[in-house]
Amino acid sequence: MHTVEELQDIVNQIILEQKFEGNPPLLYEPISYTLSQGGKRIRPLLTLLACEMFDGNMEKAIYPAIGMEIFHNFTLLHDDIMDKAPIRRGKDTVYKKWNTNIAILSGDTMFALAYEYILKTDVKFIPDILHVLSRTAIEVCEGQQFDMNFETDENICISDYLEMIRLKTAVLLGGCLKIGAIIGGADSKNADNIYNFGVNIGLAFQLKDDLLDVYSAVEKFGKITGGDILTNKKTYLYLKAFELAKGERLQQLINFYKLSDKESERKISGVKTIYNELSIDKLTINQMQEYYDKALDCLQKIPIDAAQKQNLLDFAQQLMGRES
Amino acid sequence: MHTVEELQDIVNQIILEQKFEGNPPLLYEPISYTLSQGGKRIRPLLTLLACEMFDGNMEKAIYPAIGMEIFHNFTLLHDDIMDKAPIRRGKDTVYKKWNTNIAILSGDTMFALAYEYILKTDVKFIPDILHVLSRTAIEVCEGQQFDMNFETDENICISDYLEMIRLKTAVLLGGCLKIGAIIGGADSKNADNIYNFGVNIGLAFQLKDDLLDVYSAVEKFGKITGGDILTNKKTYLYLKAFELAKGERLQQLINFYKLSDKESERKISGVKTIYNELSIDKLTINQMQEYYDKALDCLQKIPIDAAQKQNLLDFAQQLMGRES
Repeated sequence: MHTVEELQDIVNQIILEQKFEGNPPLLYEPISYTLSQGGKRIRPLLTLLACEMFDGNMEKAIYPAIGMEIFHNFTLLHDDIMDKAPIRRGKDTVYKKWNTNIAILSGDTMFALAYEYILKTDVKFIPDILHVLSRTAIEVCEGQQFDMNFETDENICISDYLEMIRLKTAVLLGGCLKIGAIIGGADSKNADNIYNFGVNIGLAFQLKDDLLDVYSAVEKFGKITGGDILTNKKTYLYLKAFELAKGERLQQLINFYKLSDKESERKISGVKTIYNELSIDKLTINQMQEYYDKALDCLQKIPIDAAQKQNLLDFAQQLMGRES
Repeated sequence: MHTVEELQDIVNQIILEQKFEGNPPLLYEPISYTLSQGGKRIRPLLTLLACEMFDGNMEKAIYPAIGMEIFHNFTLLHDDIMDKAPIRRGKDTVYKKWNTNIAILSGDTMFALAYEYILKTDVKFIPDILHVLSRTAIEVCEGQQFDMNFETDENICISDYLEMIRLKTAVLLGGCLKIGAIIGGADSKNADNIYNFGVNIGLAFQLKDDLLDVYSAVEKFGKITGGDILTNKKTYLYLKAFELAKGERLQQLINFYKLSDKESERKISGVKTIYNELSIDKLTINQMQEYYDKALDCLQKIPIDAAQKQNLLDFAQQLMGRES
């Protein structure tokens, strides 16, 4: 069994070794560009951790793990077009650096490449892990469409939001773990348990992201604190505040959110003041904790030695405790 | 063994039975819209024909066949965004009817759905047919990128063009046949032979398309004759004409191609006159015939009874003989 750091090094090393080259170069350069930028590599790591948790041979999971990272980066490429995001990981997004057509097509190629990588394992695992990727991919698309709908839909409630982030973010973490578990030899019940662990961790993870966007002490690389407030993004914090604010406070919240970019500091501090009055941070942390506890319950159900689970547990705790 | 017409009916029937429904509706409506529009259903038909040619059980190939049709329609959805095509099969394209973001995301969902359909067959076939789809998908993307590059690249020669259409169009026909052959029980040598048959038929098919765009007697549904000339598209006919035209004739050809949309009739008839003087139609037909003969050679190499091959042969002849 490897340590989390060893697995992280292996993932980074293997990605570095891959040559995403070919003709025409205009199709492949954005792929190299995207995959060489780093990022936390959370998804392939989850695949490897799950595989080793079930005492599987990590080497059989390494290419499928890379496949999941390629898939994840494909979704970012297309999301950035749809969200008109100019910057990711501190660099120009692909559609900005090249153009929309190239971002569409390089993304499509990455999706197909993800499947090619997933296939690089023992034949006996292929049908099951392929099902996981295809189902996950469809749900991630559903989540992204819900997210886009939310931009103009004024009647979003918290349960809509939680379902959206389940689809857009959480099922992929679950899927990565499930694929690792299958290759590790887990039976279908345990594969489902680790999937559900991942989905709940994913929900908690996204709530942490929402929280850090407003309350991070650390300046995030390529992101400004309060960015979600400035863009009136309907996050958990936003929806909770609108659920709880009444009377004059509600009117103030509405007015702060109406402020233009020219008054960005006033907008952020105004909204944050109301968030603080309503204890939105604590309520978000409570909801996070609830998902985290559910995740632990799912892990608990898997009848293997606690020591085998420790790496995955440490990694999950690390994701929850992060400050950026 | 079924007749071509019976297989066509089966394909249309099964596609009609599929419910491409789900939430959010904005993601799924464009998928139903696209797949209910008909089209020739050439690709799923090839899968079924290949399966039966090798005496396979057609029912095991039907969902993978539909998967290939879904994949093909996904590429059309994204191509229409990139090519800014407002009309397909006489109807608004998805990005026109909805918007670009929805066309990107519905397309992505169709790509994932294609994989889900491909998986609906015996487990033993899955690894091999999955490899075929992923490789084909990557090559189709390469072909589309070459096609986009050609719009602005002035130094395209005929061999560049043939490589582009091999990737963009022909490998998919080969891939559909290969998947059918694998499910039909063909060994890898025969699966490759039928793949090469399909690639050569695909090349001939695209040249026929180029030819019909200029010389079709029949008004194509949703397309005008001469459309490629009007848009200065670098087809086989265009490149052959520029290869052969010299001196004053070359200057005339350049001048005709410079005419604006306001003089569309003069442009089309001017270019056609030069095409006729240079026998471009006959030269295109000769090149088509060359690929068709190569295709027949590949089919010839497959050591099974000629009667078993007849349906596929009839269908290929039908594709070559079509007038629209």
